[in-house]
Amino acid sequence: MATAGKVIKCRAAVIWEAGQIPSVEEVEVAPPRTHEIRVKIVATGICRTDDHVAVGLFPGISYPVIVGHEAAGIVESVGPEVTCVKPGDRVIPLCVPQCGECASCLNTKTNFCFKSHFSQPQNLMPDKTSRFTCRGKQVYHFLWTSTFSEYTVMPEASIAKIDDAAPLEKVCLFGCGFSTGYGAAINSAKVEPGSTCAIFGLGGVGLSVIMGCKTAGASRIIGIDINKDKFAKAKELGATDCISPNDFTKPIEKVLVEMTGLGVDYSFEAIGRIETEVAALASSRLGSGTCVLVGEPPSGSQLTFDPRLIITGRKLIGSLLGGWKLKDALPKLVSDYMNKRCNPDALISHTLPFEKIAEGFELLRAGKSIRCILSF
Amino acid sequence: MATAGKVIKCRAAVIWEAGQIPSVEEVEVAPPRTHEIRVKIVATGICRTDDHVAVGLFPGISYPVIVGHEAAGIVESVGPEVTCVKPGDRVIPLCVPQCGECASCLNTKTNFCFKSHFSQPQNLMPDKTSRFTCRGKQVYHFLWTSTFSEYTVMPEASIAKIDDAAPLEKVCLFGCGFSTGYGAAINSAKVEPGSTCAIFGLGGVGLSVIMGCKTAGASRIIGIDINKDKFAKAKELGATDCISPNDFTKPIEKVLVEMTGLGVDYSFEAIGRIETEVAALASSRLGSGTCVLVGEPPSGSQLTFDPRLIITGRKLIGSLLGGWKLKDALPKLVSDYMNKRCNPDALISHTLPFEKIAEGFELLRAGKSIRCILSF
Repeated sequence: MATAGKVIKCRAAVIWEAGQIPSVEEVEVAPPRTHEIRVKIVATGICRTDDHVAVGLFPGISYPVIVGHEAAGIVESVGPEVTCVKPGDRVIPLCVPQCGECASCLNTKTNFCFKSHFSQPQNLMPDKTSRFTCRGKQVYHFLWTSTFSEYTVMPEASIAKIDDAAPLEKVCLFGCGFSTGYGAAINSAKVEPGSTCAIFGLGGVGLSVIMGCKTAGASRIIGIDINKDKFAKAKELGATDCISPNDFTKPIEKVLVEMTGLGVDYSFEAIGRIETEVAALASSRLGSGTCVLVGEPPSGSQLTFDPRLIITGRKLIGSLLGGWKLKDALPKLVSDYMNKRCNPDALISHTLPFEKIAEGFELLRAGKSIRCILSF
Repeated sequence: MATAGKVIKCRAAVIWEAGQIPSVEEVEVAPPRTHEIRVKIVATGICRTDDHVAVGLFPGISYPVIVGHEAAGIVESVGPEVTCVKPGDRVIPLCVPQCGECASCLNTKTNFCFKSHFSQPQNLMPDKTSRFTCRGKQVYHFLWTSTFSEYTVMPEASIAKIDDAAPLEKVCLFGCGFSTGYGAAINSAKVEPGSTCAIFGLGGVGLSVIMGCKTAGASRIIGIDINKDKFAKAKELGATDCISPNDFTKPIEKVLVEMTGLGVDYSFEAIGRIETEVAALASSRLGSGTCVLVGEPPSGSQLTFDPRLIITGRKLIGSLLGGWKLKDALPKLVSDYMNKRCNPDALISHTLPFEKIAEGFELLRAGKSIRCILSF
């Protein structure tokens, strides 16, 4: 069936307004314009960030919107002047673009592309129009990915070509959760062999941090969560200890300092809560510890702590999607997966057909899923 | 005159209680005990930290006390089991010790010796007694240096042997101010050639940061101070621009971002004020900037900022006395001075005989001196 250049009618999940979970609808997806690519999504994970939009906590969103940003698919057609992929290529959409032209993309020290949502809204394509309509209304894009649609359109900056043999229903995790946590350990913190690590929050990202720490050769990996149901998986993936703050009367940072003598070499906050950010900083080793902020706290929140925690030698650093320049990094990461050098499969706790997306959101909200993968 | 093993009577400046400036007195200095060294101080600088004790702002001080911590001198005698120096050696006292035995001293990533005042009071020798008496009263030590005394006693952990030919009235600056600022740039931040830098506070430490940035090959070095009298010296030492926040209605971090496009690669706070710490962080480059906290803010103060400043890729790091392990580093730094690879001489704005120490404190408080060196 030749679809290139035509509007495609397909299934998508639309959030009509804040406070609603996505509802499956028939949408029209316009063909890609210059420097754009239309992709048939094969599999897509449900990430907490998608739910933030559903709840209304994500800043700068326009509704109705199609969210979804952790996926893998196949190029259906390309617009004029696209050179990086061709129809049939297997791809992963990039929720942090790599435009290749901005000052950040030209700077080896950062992956903070100025085309990302931190700098500008990504609710429309770069030409300020939408490719989606539903029931006669324009529907907004999200992060230029909008992977909760069987077909979606994205700019060249937001796509990485991957190995033709990669299993899309697995490697979709490289689009966000796994790369974020794994890269925070391997790439941003550069965890060293023999070091001690603490990970606050044992969701998909936190578990991926654990895998990164293990790969880096950490000798002690301490998982922290108030939900002890998460401990078994954390230990399966590399945690040497798991503790719940609810089991102690003293602050968790004191517990960690006592467990390790002076605090951990590397602490990671993978929740996005101010209280755990401060605890993570205070539990990093006096004089030399590194605390990595991974989770994104609510808009407008403020971090407050004694600057002596820093002046005496600790480092506070951030990690945005694992610090990877994704267009360059994802093909290599997927290649590592194919060569069994990393394996996020264990993060997939549920698989559902796309129609059951509402059930997937319920699992997420109930804390029952790590990653629920929807397949078309 | 053989003095070893005897009590020495000499001049010293005693702060009898918080709120008083040091008063010159005759004191008795007991001989060094095991692992201790008695040093004849030749020259000593007056640092803001000394004044913090005089004012009563430094935590954990016992009065009466002899302060002073930036000096150079000659070993007068050594106690039993001292092996690192002998009488006649030229030395610099270390206000951050390097005991060589604690977990930090054994860790290459930090100079935060656990014998330093951040971990334990240094108001008495390690055996919990004082070597100073004045008018029949015990006088307390400060940082195990107490260099505002013609003779002073310190433990082996707090002394570095330097080149016999080093001019003591100059290299005393390596004991604190110069090493702190120069090391913050060279050693803690590892400023790279061609980078942009901003330095908040153009006192002795801030000027030393400028020298470090220049040595590292920074292409743009912006000095910030509300006292424009400091701009000429800053430019002489390497600043390419100097600005006063009082000349702008917009916040200084916005001015710096506009001056540089995206913020500076490295920002340094060399004052110890919460407001300028936040401004320094916010003026570091989006996605990749490093902010170095050098100044020590008032006890109990809290730093508050939006964690997105970090999550998007900035680094917040600290620098304690330039990050140097001083017993190892000072001989090399002094050697660099002798070989003209670094030169803090320009920081010496005033020299006074020791008896005029009160005048030196007045110059400091009036903002008229960079470093006033007292000589015995």
